[in-house]
Amino acid sequence: MSKKDRTEPRRLKGFRDYMPDVMAARFHIMDIIRSEATLAGFQVIGTPALEYAVTLLGQGEETDKQVYRFVDHGERQVALRFDLTVPFARFVAEHQGELVFPFKKLQMGDVWRGENPQKGRFREFMQCDLDIIGVDAAAADIEILSVFQRILTRVACGPFTMAVGDRVVLSALIRRCLPDIPPGGETAALILLDKLAKIGAPAVVEQLAAIEGATALGAETLLGLVTTRTGGGDTDLAPVRRELADDESAQAEIRRLELVLAATRGAIPETTGQLRLDLTIARGLGYYTGIVFETTLDQLPGFGSISSGGRYNNLASRFSSRELPGVGGSVGLDRLVAGLEELGRVEAAPAKPVYVAVATEDALAYAAALAGRLRAAGIATDFGLAPKLAAQFKHADRRGCPYVVTVGSSERESDTYALKSMGEGDEMRDLPAVGIVDELRRRGL
Amino acid sequence: MSKKDRTEPRRLKGFRDYMPDVMAARFHIMDIIRSEATLAGFQVIGTPALEYAVTLLGQGEETDKQVYRFVDHGERQVALRFDLTVPFARFVAEHQGELVFPFKKLQMGDVWRGENPQKGRFREFMQCDLDIIGVDAAAADIEILSVFQRILTRVACGPFTMAVGDRVVLSALIRRCLPDIPPGGETAALILLDKLAKIGAPAVVEQLAAIEGATALGAETLLGLVTTRTGGGDTDLAPVRRELADDESAQAEIRRLELVLAATRGAIPETTGQLRLDLTIARGLGYYTGIVFETTLDQLPGFGSISSGGRYNNLASRFSSRELPGVGGSVGLDRLVAGLEELGRVEAAPAKPVYVAVATEDALAYAAALAGRLRAAGIATDFGLAPKLAAQFKHADRRGCPYVVTVGSSERESDTYALKSMGEGDEMRDLPAVGIVDELRRRGL
Repeated sequence: MSKKDRTEPRRLKGFRDYMPDVMAARFHIMDIIRSEATLAGFQVIGTPALEYAVTLLGQGEETDKQVYRFVDHGERQVALRFDLTVPFARFVAEHQGELVFPFKKLQMGDVWRGENPQKGRFREFMQCDLDIIGVDAAAADIEILSVFQRILTRVACGPFTMAVGDRVVLSALIRRCLPDIPPGGETAALILLDKLAKIGAPAVVEQLAAIEGATALGAETLLGLVTTRTGGGDTDLAPVRRELADDESAQAEIRRLELVLAATRGAIPETTGQLRLDLTIARGLGYYTGIVFETTLDQLPGFGSISSGGRYNNLASRFSSRELPGVGGSVGLDRLVAGLEELGRVEAAPAKPVYVAVATEDALAYAAALAGRLRAAGIATDFGLAPKLAAQFKHADRRGCPYVVTVGSSERESDTYALKSMGEGDEMRDLPAVGIVDELRRRGL
Repeated sequence: MSKKDRTEPRRLKGFRDYMPDVMAARFHIMDIIRSEATLAGFQVIGTPALEYAVTLLGQGEETDKQVYRFVDHGERQVALRFDLTVPFARFVAEHQGELVFPFKKLQMGDVWRGENPQKGRFREFMQCDLDIIGVDAAAADIEILSVFQRILTRVACGPFTMAVGDRVVLSALIRRCLPDIPPGGETAALILLDKLAKIGAPAVVEQLAAIEGATALGAETLLGLVTTRTGGGDTDLAPVRRELADDESAQAEIRRLELVLAATRGAIPETTGQLRLDLTIARGLGYYTGIVFETTLDQLPGFGSISSGGRYNNLASRFSSRELPGVGGSVGLDRLVAGLEELGRVEAAPAKPVYVAVATEDALAYAAALAGRLRAAGIATDFGLAPKLAAQFKHADRRGCPYVVTVGSSERESDTYALKSMGEGDEMRDLPAVGIVDELRRRGL
């Protein structure tokens, strides 16, 4: 093809190619998520990348703007999924007759957002969502918190902190401390509290007090209640309980919250994470109606949340009259890989293969049989791809192969092989082929 | 939400939701592909779902028509990938400086085609491609054929036949038997030979003879040569070799083909598949320049190919001046799942979980701790999600759980549990919690 007919090879802005090391890290984490989810009785489902646009849109102006949408071959308005939550709601509404509720699901899939790409943020990324749908019970909250604790522990991302808040308690406190704000003011207060770590307490108090109908005293009281800690670092619930003494539903929610935290702690003795009660966790606007949680890596302050979620009580209301309370959360797979990279904890790529080199073409079949025997024994093995022996050794070296097995006419005739250790450089000759698996096992493969 | 504001929950035509059984089967096969590929020294890569339209288009009018394309937020002409081959060519051209050649890669990913959906064909499906790029050598052909043989053997799809042809030999035979056809006639002859199984030998001969410049005798000779079999079922190469005695490049290719077949057979002693030399395999138009292969399930005649590929000698010519010969193939994951379903060989979904039921709320933390202990021991465990005990038993029954562990106040106090076998209906009480893992292991979990 002449130069002028060629196409420049380039990716779209905000999109990545995934090189082997990154793919190994992603699959390592996906395997852990799937294994832990399955152990906890979750079932894996999948939904298409494309949906009717009307299914995905309507999640807010900012979100709608970022959705990739177009008209398909059949003149349908379609869109690429923006998250896995809305397609899951559609899935549950469409298949409610086939599913056994409570339904525990894992979904792992790419999502697409046409937002401005920044460092560490891409227009295509993978989400891994775990949800329990069809029940509003403390047991389900415990299941969700503990499965994410187990996943992050096995991912070996170092110590982490899962901060758990509660929207029912938080809303009750807002209403109690700022009784005269209009209904929209509660949302404004939630958003402000969510910014606490970013803008600091004085700014939050000031801006809370500026909400219509709010008072400076109320704002201070509210912030004091949610930020007072016990010695263990949890939000101190004693003053909260006193403040809400006459609010029965808040009292019930506080009891449930304490039960959830205690039981979750008991269910994950081996965790490397902490579970911390933190009533300042508000999770923005969202659709949360009970516990909410956010998880950060202790060794990467400022890196942001790697896993978050909460309870929502009407997942599929846009699609069905059936009430389907649920609780769930998400691991940002690519965020987590980025975090592990920063920590220098990325799981090593698969073991470097042994290389079977072929000195003479008449030994090709013999070499292929040896490679087959090694692979059948579970030893990763590459195979003389370049025509000349020197090129094969160079290839083995560049690939980082620890050992090269060489065979040619004489080895084929005597049923032997030569073995070179690429690290130490020494070579042994005339080893019997019958013992090749044992020989390499002895060397730690 | 009122009824009139609701959105009907429905998928796009030609798209599927993936239920837990199907996802379990897909992941089972993907795990095997990844494991065998890694054992054979292949590295996993990934590319984005979206590319510049100009990267993907130009693969033929029929293909171009099926590509999902649109204008993105930045007014770029973009498209969803139609296969993994073209994005891989772009990937290789873009990253050639970072890759170690020969480069062996596995890529698994969804592709999208706006074609008319038919039974078993969808607009979104997953391809799993293995390729070796940067070398034109028999060793690479052997690697590709044997890795697909090992994958299909481990997938346990029953006996299968991998038919291997060769485009160099086939083209030489066409030129020899039909010397006076124009250049375009060779392509027409290839397409006709590809239809042999479908339309039968007499029709192929008749239509071959009708190509401009062809003769009936030449057409008959050609078909005779490619369809004459040895006792073992392979195309008999003796008459082919005689016919092409003075064609040196064809003779070299025949020797290479025989070497590839013999070495591959030696490399996969444990295979449940056959490798059959079949010179009628033409693989349509395509870009193939050496061996070509197609794989069918012996127990499902007429089901079509589940894995195919071949050698191509200029993967990235659209994107780079560098010559990159390659050999590779594809497993149609969803085709294979469909085949396994028809054979009744779909791998069972993950083991059904034990169910830990909670009789009284004060035992919730105790129950969560027991569930945590079982999971830490690798026993899949579900957990009392419904508020009432009867509902939990009903849920365990509907989920197919083999055993239910029940705990309430008295069990919590005495550190015991009750164990019910759902199949046999018998229940044991007051078992010591400390032995719960051993007890369930004894029962085969």
